[in-house]
Amino acid sequence: MRNNGNDLNSEIRKDPVIGRWVIVGHDKGYVAEKKESIQRKANPSCPFCPGNESSTPPEILSVEKDGKWQIRVIPNKYPALSSEGEIKREGVGLFDKMSGIGAHEVIIETPDHLASVTSLTVEQFTEVLKVFRSRFNELKKDERFRHVLLFKNEGHSAGASIEHSHSQIIATPIIPKRVQEELDGAEFYYSYKKRCVFCDMLELDNRFFKERVVIENDNMCVISPFAARFPFEMWVLPKKHFSTWENSDDEMLRSQAEILLSILRALDDVLGNPPYNIILHSSPINGNCDNYYHWHFEIIPKMKRIAGFEWGTGFYINPVPPEEAAEVLKRRLNR
Amino acid sequence: MRNNGNDLNSEIRKDPVIGRWVIVGHDKGYVAEKKESIQRKANPSCPFCPGNESSTPPEILSVEKDGKWQIRVIPNKYPALSSEGEIKREGVGLFDKMSGIGAHEVIIETPDHLASVTSLTVEQFTEVLKVFRSRFNELKKDERFRHVLLFKNEGHSAGASIEHSHSQIIATPIIPKRVQEELDGAEFYYSYKKRCVFCDMLELDNRFFKERVVIENDNMCVISPFAARFPFEMWVLPKKHFSTWENSDDEMLRSQAEILLSILRALDDVLGNPPYNIILHSSPINGNCDNYYHWHFEIIPKMKRIAGFEWGTGFYINPVPPEEAAEVLKRRLNR
Repeated sequence: MRNNGNDLNSEIRKDPVIGRWVIVGHDKGYVAEKKESIQRKANPSCPFCPGNESSTPPEILSVEKDGKWQIRVIPNKYPALSSEGEIKREGVGLFDKMSGIGAHEVIIETPDHLASVTSLTVEQFTEVLKVFRSRFNELKKDERFRHVLLFKNEGHSAGASIEHSHSQIIATPIIPKRVQEELDGAEFYYSYKKRCVFCDMLELDNRFFKERVVIENDNMCVISPFAARFPFEMWVLPKKHFSTWENSDDEMLRSQAEILLSILRALDDVLGNPPYNIILHSSPINGNCDNYYHWHFEIIPKMKRIAGFEWGTGFYINPVPPEEAAEVLKRRLNR
Repeated sequence: MRNNGNDLNSEIRKDPVIGRWVIVGHDKGYVAEKKESIQRKANPSCPFCPGNESSTPPEILSVEKDGKWQIRVIPNKYPALSSEGEIKREGVGLFDKMSGIGAHEVIIETPDHLASVTSLTVEQFTEVLKVFRSRFNELKKDERFRHVLLFKNEGHSAGASIEHSHSQIIATPIIPKRVQEELDGAEFYYSYKKRCVFCDMLELDNRFFKERVVIENDNMCVISPFAARFPFEMWVLPKKHFSTWENSDDEMLRSQAEILLSILRALDDVLGNPPYNIILHSSPINGNCDNYYHWHFEIIPKMKRIAGFEWGTGFYINPVPPEEAAEVLKRRLNR
């Protein structure tokens, strides 16, 4: 918090989907809070670099060009969940548990150790998205799983333990809480409006709050959400209502690659290569929520430390109003 | 994750109150993940040190001894919320907001810049808790507020921006989401069991899962919770059912001081002065939940970075099984 008590002008905003309240303040100090500026250094022992393929588990698939791999999918060497075995459920009184069954894969997005995804071309990034889609659809077939999570940690303070650009995919036998909350919120809204809450949000922002619409193309739109939890948090949504990302056709994937590259490059420029997370929010497997759920990516730059208050309460303080974040990014994008 | 794929033996556990699932793995690597070991250094310009009182806003109260303050309460110089004004509510379509009204105070727990709370005596810590209670009860009287949050950030990576030992108290016009989830979970359980879920959890752990009971005294108990989200997460609960912490009498506060000092000292020893957060979970103001809510402290050492996966999903991976964390701490406590 860098607000001067005298000009404090914060407000408390409610997320329209989940109902979470966020304190949105006015603060120009966000850049000073940034801890990390990503700069990659060559590392001969990087397990994700060409030549070191033997230091990873055997690959699941790869995309090749001129006899060299461009994208490579491997099982996570240190998986959070084990892919072998049956799901056993067990409980004693209050305490429910199940076996830690799931899939945990790593997608290496480029052979170039020094490259970030923003240095890929639209064509290359589209190929990466196609690989994501292929793995997503493959994991969906496993009847043990209820949900597939696709996410990217960029930079150490965003959780990346290996610098070489990669994403991860985790299939789980349960629906994660945050996803369930979104589903519940969207279903509740649909139950009395018979409309998708995400569609309504896009409509409202596009008609009356253009200041939160950062960039759009034929199929996709990036908004700086009304109740953003984090400085420069961005949501990337399809303009048309789709519940399942993994059904995106090639044209949609290209639109996504284009808009993701634009917004990530703008964030890099404006915030100086910040660490960030990208998380795909798509319908659970057989989620039965086509009417009311709307898939999207969430991009969360790691600009501030998260304190106990936020952990313990689910109540966030975002010093940067989303309209200001959008304005800064739009200036950059329209340059 | 430091698991070797070969001996992976994780399980997925469900928090009995909130229903959140956590992947609990087996991992001895938690110490290597720790980023920060707290070591305080003298700082002549520290605004919380005696002699520099004029660099803080005027004090709200202080506890003195021999003409010198021992504990001091001040308004936060950079408050998240403003204490002056009416609460105005406003909405456009989906988007609800209210004015950022609230209270934000800082409790300086010792005049000694180099001291952590663990260097206080039981008597001194009891005095600190009495000051918390006094401010809590004072803020409760303000009819604009629905909830009072009391929390401590120890160490930079736990969110502390000033090294000198202090806690914070924030009164808000809304009930934070996490608190509401606990209330909802506890109410749901009560609706079909007519019992408190926290009481049942304590009972079950004490009768059948002693391995999760870390330490107890006459009034209080520390458990390593079944579905701990974080390595060495600890919950500190009263053995008897009480919904509101701020009604604790002096004897209860002394019991709390005693047990908090014991567990915090054990964590310091075992984890090497880790950064941590302590968050008080007490009933909202006029929460009407005396039957089913059970106040408690949550202690969360910051042992690992939080990655996108966890942010985006509310689905946590805890490499250290709570039973192992308890065992390590109990060995230290019984030494």
